[in-house]
Amino acid sequence: MKYYALGVQYDGTRYSGFQRQAETPTIQAELENALSSIAAEPIRVTASGRTDRGVHATQQVVSFGTPVERPDRAWVDGVNSQLPNTIQISWVREVTSKFNARFSALWRRYAYVYGLRTNYQVFVRDFVTWTDAYLDVERMRCAADLFIGEHDFSSFRASSCTSRTPYRRVYQLDVIRSGHFVVIDIVANAFLLHMVRNLAALLHQVGTNEFSSDDVQELLEARDRKLSPPTAPASGLYLTGAGYEEEFDIDSTVRIPAILGNIQQSFKPVTLPCDYYRRSIEP
Amino acid sequence: MKYYALGVQYDGTRYSGFQRQAETPTIQAELENALSSIAAEPIRVTASGRTDRGVHATQQVVSFGTPVERPDRAWVDGVNSQLPNTIQISWVREVTSKFNARFSALWRRYAYVYGLRTNYQVFVRDFVTWTDAYLDVERMRCAADLFIGEHDFSSFRASSCTSRTPYRRVYQLDVIRSGHFVVIDIVANAFLLHMVRNLAALLHQVGTNEFSSDDVQELLEARDRKLSPPTAPASGLYLTGAGYEEEFDIDSTVRIPAILGNIQQSFKPVTLPCDYYRRSIEP
Repeated sequence: MKYYALGVQYDGTRYSGFQRQAETPTIQAELENALSSIAAEPIRVTASGRTDRGVHATQQVVSFGTPVERPDRAWVDGVNSQLPNTIQISWVREVTSKFNARFSALWRRYAYVYGLRTNYQVFVRDFVTWTDAYLDVERMRCAADLFIGEHDFSSFRASSCTSRTPYRRVYQLDVIRSGHFVVIDIVANAFLLHMVRNLAALLHQVGTNEFSSDDVQELLEARDRKLSPPTAPASGLYLTGAGYEEEFDIDSTVRIPAILGNIQQSFKPVTLPCDYYRRSIEP
Repeated sequence: MKYYALGVQYDGTRYSGFQRQAETPTIQAELENALSSIAAEPIRVTASGRTDRGVHATQQVVSFGTPVERPDRAWVDGVNSQLPNTIQISWVREVTSKFNARFSALWRRYAYVYGLRTNYQVFVRDFVTWTDAYLDVERMRCAADLFIGEHDFSSFRASSCTSRTPYRRVYQLDVIRSGHFVVIDIVANAFLLHMVRNLAALLHQVGTNEFSSDDVQELLEARDRKLSPPTAPASGLYLTGAGYEEEFDIDSTVRIPAILGNIQQSFKPVTLPCDYYRRSIEP
């Protein structure tokens, strides 16, 4: 058997999320169909994170095993030729059987993008959450700091979330302005259902001065979803990367949505805390 | 009568160009339908430039007259609510009857965007011309200089062009790199049919070292369309502004395609040569 990891990007607008479902278009179904066509036998993939309906990815990591031998180019160019132009493979890497895109992931990274509606651009209509408000990025940054570390994120968890625990560990959470866009860049061990969109919605209200940092602290401690603002739309959300142990040699550089331009340097590389290697992490 | 100028942006992908045609979707038809609906009577518009099938605009200037009185907001928000989200009004300005978006225009500005295919992004699939080649921007800049000034552009003119003269005056022509994108930024009094796309195709070949500056000079002087490379695709082309006499007070700031990010400062403001006001310009 050969084992591979792939970097995948997609425009999630017209898909019912990553996970395969009967009778509705999904990223997983498109990917598996294209891979199976190149392999000429059925392939099933595992992903670093199962993004929701309408959510995009600049870099999703998926893994699969196959008895079939193909050159690396076939897993990129060949598969891309079988995929719609809304889903494309960016890179392939051969890995060992130990590697699993989901269970080996140490962290996942998301970007949530708000765009100022007065600078609406038709070209990015589906790739941003448009807002009428000018957002105060410094206020958002101070509130964002409160989420760093391990917390019970019940206040930001969708009622339909099936995770066995509401604890997640946030490693990094930055708020970055690029022109008329404001980006929330978040890294955590894993995320609850709708967690990034619920945090983004709250940080938006901080940016417009409707919530203070104290309100945010209270809300986090309340562990009550009903107290925080409605979930922000999927259109502004991108999965931007996932991290693995160095031995797997997987590209975990954040991929910036193209609309944000050339601001790679504003996104910090991920550094896990030293105690990461000393204690067990939930979940 | 009241007279207005509008700034319009559009994703040209699914349209057969600006100019109204029977039985095929055009920007002009969508605009006139939306304006007429707000005015509750027929409105016809004139545009700074009639962009071709598939060509985008970050800023097209159109003008119209109407006996109907409406607040400015109606001409922006009201009209936008009647337009598809691929076409939107950015601004409105009341003008005098002397103003005509086409005949009053002193210059038009276009951006042609090449993207390096190794950094393909699904989100901008229709808004860039993808190339496998790494482009040498310095070589392109030197060749681009040869087009500055008034020339017979027959070598870059589509055979179906109906202009009475092949002379055009190029005021500015810059080549700008932004991350994995290379932008050709061009300002001229007016353009022949396919002129920007033909110049872009040639400059691409200069960037890949297939043509030298000497070849470019020869080609320009040959006045023979058959000698220069095939027309570059419409997907990479944007109308980014148009300029008018100061008295009209029209916003002529270049609008940068969102994918290029926050690089406004790389695009120089337009300065017409002093002799512009001393001699007559073709056409």
